[in-house]
Amino acid sequence: MSCPASWAIGPSGIYGLQIGEEYGGAGESDYRYRMVVCEEIARVHTLSFGLTVALQDDLVLHYLLDLTTDEQKRRWLPGFARGETIGALAMTEPGTGSDLRGIRTSARPDGDDWILNGQKTFISSGIMADLVIVAARTDPDAGSRGFSLMVVERDMPGFTRGRKLDKIGLPGQDTAELYFEEVRVPAANLLGSPGEGLPQLMSHLPRERLGVTATAIATSRAIFDLTRDYCFDRRAFGKPIGDLQHIRFELAEMATELDIAEAYVDRSVRAYNAGELTAVDAAKGKWFVSELQKRVIDRCLQLHGGYGYMTEYPVARAFVDTRIQTIYGGTTEIMKEIIGRDLAG
Amino acid sequence: MSCPASWAIGPSGIYGLQIGEEYGGAGESDYRYRMVVCEEIARVHTLSFGLTVALQDDLVLHYLLDLTTDEQKRRWLPGFARGETIGALAMTEPGTGSDLRGIRTSARPDGDDWILNGQKTFISSGIMADLVIVAARTDPDAGSRGFSLMVVERDMPGFTRGRKLDKIGLPGQDTAELYFEEVRVPAANLLGSPGEGLPQLMSHLPRERLGVTATAIATSRAIFDLTRDYCFDRRAFGKPIGDLQHIRFELAEMATELDIAEAYVDRSVRAYNAGELTAVDAAKGKWFVSELQKRVIDRCLQLHGGYGYMTEYPVARAFVDTRIQTIYGGTTEIMKEIIGRDLAG
Amino acid sequence: MSCPASWAIGPSGIYGLQIGEEYGGAGESDYRYRMVVCEEIARVHTLSFGLTVALQDDLVLHYLLDLTTDEQKRRWLPGFARGETIGALAMTEPGTGSDLRGIRTSARPDGDDWILNGQKTFISSGIMADLVIVAARTDPDAGSRGFSLMVVERDMPGFTRGRKLDKIGLPGQDTAELYFEEVRVPAANLLGSPGEGLPQLMSHLPRERLGVTATAIATSRAIFDLTRDYCFDRRAFGKPIGDLQHIRFELAEMATELDIAEAYVDRSVRAYNAGELTAVDAAKGKWFVSELQKRVIDRCLQLHGGYGYMTEYPVARAFVDTRIQTIYGGTTEIMKEIIGRDLAG
Amino acid sequence: MSCPASWAIGPSGIYGLQIGEEYGGAGESDYRYRMVVCEEIARVHTLSFGLTVALQDDLVLHYLLDLTTDEQKRRWLPGFARGETIGALAMTEPGTGSDLRGIRTSARPDGDDWILNGQKTFISSGIMADLVIVAARTDPDAGSRGFSLMVVERDMPGFTRGRKLDKIGLPGQDTAELYFEEVRVPAANLLGSPGEGLPQLMSHLPRERLGVTATAIATSRAIFDLTRDYCFDRRAFGKPIGDLQHIRFELAEMATELDIAEAYVDRSVRAYNAGELTAVDAAKGKWFVSELQKRVIDRCLQLHGGYGYMTEYPVARAFVDTRIQTIYGGTTEIMKEIIGRDLAG
Repeated sequence: MSCPASWAIGPSGIYGLQIGEEYGGAGESDYRYRMVVCEEIARVHTLSFGLTVALQDDLVLHYLLDLTTDEQKRRWLPGFARGETIGALAMTEPGTGSDLRGIRTSARPDGDDWILNGQKTFISSGIMADLVIVAARTDPDAGSRGFSLMVVERDMPGFTRGRKLDKIGLPGQDTAELYFEEVRVPAANLLGSPGEGLPQLMSHLPRERLGVTATAIATSRAIFDLTRDYCFDRRAFGKPIGDLQHIRFELAEMATELDIAEAYVDRSVRAYNAGELTAVDAAKGKWFVSELQKRVIDRCLQLHGGYGYMTEYPVARAFVDTRIQTIYGGTTEIMKEIIGRDLAG
Repeated sequence: MSCPASWAIGPSGIYGLQIGEEYGGAGESDYRYRMVVCEEIARVHTLSFGLTVALQDDLVLHYLLDLTTDEQKRRWLPGFARGETIGALAMTEPGTGSDLRGIRTSARPDGDDWILNGQKTFISSGIMADLVIVAARTDPDAGSRGFSLMVVERDMPGFTRGRKLDKIGLPGQDTAELYFEEVRVPAANLLGSPGEGLPQLMSHLPRERLGVTATAIATSRAIFDLTRDYCFDRRAFGKPIGDLQHIRFELAEMATELDIAEAYVDRSVRAYNAGELTAVDAAKGKWFVSELQKRVIDRCLQLHGGYGYMTEYPVARAFVDTRIQTIYGGTTEIMKEIIGRDLAG
Repeated sequence: MSCPASWAIGPSGIYGLQIGEEYGGAGESDYRYRMVVCEEIARVHTLSFGLTVALQDDLVLHYLLDLTTDEQKRRWLPGFARGETIGALAMTEPGTGSDLRGIRTSARPDGDDWILNGQKTFISSGIMADLVIVAARTDPDAGSRGFSLMVVERDMPGFTRGRKLDKIGLPGQDTAELYFEEVRVPAANLLGSPGEGLPQLMSHLPRERLGVTATAIATSRAIFDLTRDYCFDRRAFGKPIGDLQHIRFELAEMATELDIAEAYVDRSVRAYNAGELTAVDAAKGKWFVSELQKRVIDRCLQLHGGYGYMTEYPVARAFVDTRIQTIYGGTTEIMKEIIGRDLAG
Repeated sequence: MSCPASWAIGPSGIYGLQIGEEYGGAGESDYRYRMVVCEEIARVHTLSFGLTVALQDDLVLHYLLDLTTDEQKRRWLPGFARGETIGALAMTEPGTGSDLRGIRTSARPDGDDWILNGQKTFISSGIMADLVIVAARTDPDAGSRGFSLMVVERDMPGFTRGRKLDKIGLPGQDTAELYFEEVRVPAANLLGSPGEGLPQLMSHLPRERLGVTATAIATSRAIFDLTRDYCFDRRAFGKPIGDLQHIRFELAEMATELDIAEAYVDRSVRAYNAGELTAVDAAKGKWFVSELQKRVIDRCLQLHGGYGYMTEYPVARAFVDTRIQTIYGGTTEIMKEIIGRDLAG
């Protein structure tokens, strides 16, 4: 069971585009269709909802497509395709942040099952999730090969959730702490082989980051477009404020930066479609375009003057919703580490 | 009648420092005492309240000290000194923004009174104000000498207020639209001479802008201090994150910029105390330090990672509260116009 | 007659790629080949020479290909293809800068000839040019339709040149003032129809600007590459300086920005090849990538420490050579005007 | 013997302001007089000469005032006061850069003398120096207490100099490599006690850095002032370019940033006069104001258009002269390390 909004949207087919037709999806893996969804959501300024869709389609779904058995696919994919099943990915823990090797949630084998204990935080869709992919340490002596991914489902005993965290933005989307106390997870809910958790997470990061990048460019463009219109509609000192050279330059700079970034995003999408988007190239797009989003929306807000501070204006909501973009999915700083280490070759 | 918070605070004497002792104030016009108030409020992260105090002491009070008759002083100052009377200044109108000459609210003489009609927007403390200084056109043929300031009081017939505007920050402070419909304002409520409104507003801008600057430096410093502590407390990858060179540099850059700006603020305060703070120098501080505040708090939020997006963290609240600083009291762009025109000299 | 360097290079075929084979060229109009030339020149750090080639191939040649009669083509193109004829374009005058309509150089008809008088400044290759395309006012009453382009050749009486201007960079390339005193220019040297000068100049700007953009990305990449190598070779405090997180982040940021910009340049090249590169899109690339070049090379110089200030290091020479990129071919400010006006639509 | 320029200037008394009257100086230790010298030199745009003066008065002289015996003072100070003796400080070595502990130049005791061997690079005034303070390792087993400072004089056998290095700016000032091969330095030329070299260098850094900061603000102000005049003199599109809003904003931003920085420099000068300028506060000024100088002069150059690239314009020369400011006297990066470590405190 999940949120009414996703129920309403599910039948429209914008969820789970790339789920095979045999599971009720559109079988459309071309990422350009995801871009269209991002752009349309951005244009109606529902960023909380956009994030929920992104979490489904750019984050959780890919684990369920790539790492699952046929049995698991049959169990989980149809609900995703209908938009009825909401998923979450639980990596981060209090005190670990970007350091995956510091994960302390653990699972010990017990017969065919795993017994899971631990705590996760900042889990997007954590409250409404029907299905949570949990990263846990399954072999304390195996170093980076000692982690596994397993699916915890809504009603498993011992699985509880904290309150919806109070964020400065994205009010329509939930972020929560999750608690696991002696949760019995059947072997049939393990994703892939035990011990493969870290490489599985690593290999899915490019897609997740492309998703953040896609949202970033679409949102920036949508807010820029309405700001441009605002500047040529609104009058001060007897003429449209867009006639002021400073404002014309502001708009010109943003228009340029958006086009420049968009060329890179388009290239990334083509690379992704061809199976060639590297972790490093995805990291470049992720930090650059999300930082650009922050910058563009801040400038657009300023151009709105006092109206930009009023929640009823889309630019104001976009401002607070945007601030998490350079943090989740790997902070800007982590992206630069990844890129810098690659340069050291 | 006004807000309970101000009642509680009034007796502490932090309101109306510069009101003469004969009216119940401290008679302390040295602005360094105001700076101390700003700093103490910033350290407990109550920016909404800080703004309410600033509106009283850096904005409204000075009109009541400088432009009033003895009778007016006796009527209004004691309530200010006790923190019981809350004031507001109503300049901005829908569609005028920074362009004071576009004011359409007007007052026509009627016997000894003025009959006021019009609408104001974005009025800080508009809801809770007991006393509103309204800028109105009193002589449509007199150009920039055709405006006057007059005090509208809480219960005057025809004076109504819109809803509290829903802002992205400063939730504990109110901003509202005000409506005036055939409000009869007695001549005894006019500030100074009729026709002097624009010069009166102009001459009080430096003080108002110094007030924004003072809040900006105090808030930036307070958030920086807690972020520095956070960086040396919080551990990742086995050590305090402040040991990472990137974070050390971030902190070093902010520490430098704060000290640089503070030297200028201190200079401005000394100039203000000596009656020598020019409109241009106040404008320089206003835009530079409020933009610095925006930049510093944004960086501090980033250093907090996901916690920075959670409303319970002071840095998160400061982020949304801060965003108006470069807009109200004269936008950054208006400040640059003032400075640039002065250079053309 | 022209410079020995161009004589030596001419036979290599890197000049005049797109001149038809019937005139001795390669007949290769795909701009990607020009990009290869830019990149190879950038890698050997001969920016003065690179500019000379760019002036030939991205600036002058296109007037000679697009606006000429067959007779003119036969006269001028073979020398260009061999690299023996050096051209220049003379637009700018003392005091006009970006304002083409302020051109005061003029030509009056005299029989079949034009008599040219005036002065030009900042003319790249002005000293060594065999052939100068001069923009002159030919009809003082025709407004923006009163300008024409005509070719002045090396030995025409009345055509003289000032000294080679002393620039802070690009020492191997000449920039000069040109003087025209009663120069008799035969009708056969007019490009296209009289009165078409401004539209002719306008229509060729995208190509010129793409040329600056191509140089900018190629030079930035070349200097970045050697700086990255420098950072991983050079040791301080017992390890390569590239191991310092700050330097790793610097390199990561530049690597990202170069890739982002490159995606846009590639898109522009494809658009140019398809005849679809608009003036606005060329302007976006021109300012953004040349500003990026300035920023990247400045940071690379800093990473070299004291060595970066020594002329023998390529980064030092690139620093001074680069500074003109945001100025010539239309300043950054003019580019923003073009883009901003387009947004006003 | 030294350069004619310094001979000519010596008698004017701008050298060695703080040398006591008994040695022929002005006995004026108030740093505000040095600021006046900086400002006057900046206004006539002779930055190479300004650096030479700074090296004398902000760098070398202080070692000779603070660490010398009476005998040494009598020997060296009168020549400094007359501007006839030029000094240099030789710290940096090929491959050490900012890492003083990596110094490999060494001196071994031999009777009452020291025998010095090694090589220094990037030594300002190295060619024309009559007297070079050399940092050398005198006890290989004593760690950071194993370095000493000693004065090498012009004609000592075994002391030779390389060529004047070819820099991109500061052509009137020399920078050179110095070689020491079995140079016999008498004990009477040791500064202070042996083993105290590193602390001696450390304790003199604030003064050196204040000197760079003083030059930075003075040069920035001088170039800004002439650029402002240029913008209101030069006309384009029918009016002074300073009437364009973009240019007005550029000027307004620079005017603000200069005033902000100046307040800090003034505070630093007062602190220095009171003996209270800390290494950390000097580091803050050094990086911030030298980076501001770079930024301001780059923008001023841009406002000059093509003229800004011509060596005859002061802004063009200032651009190339300025680029070393963020590198010598401790790079921006080293300054941030110093400040960041202090914050960790």
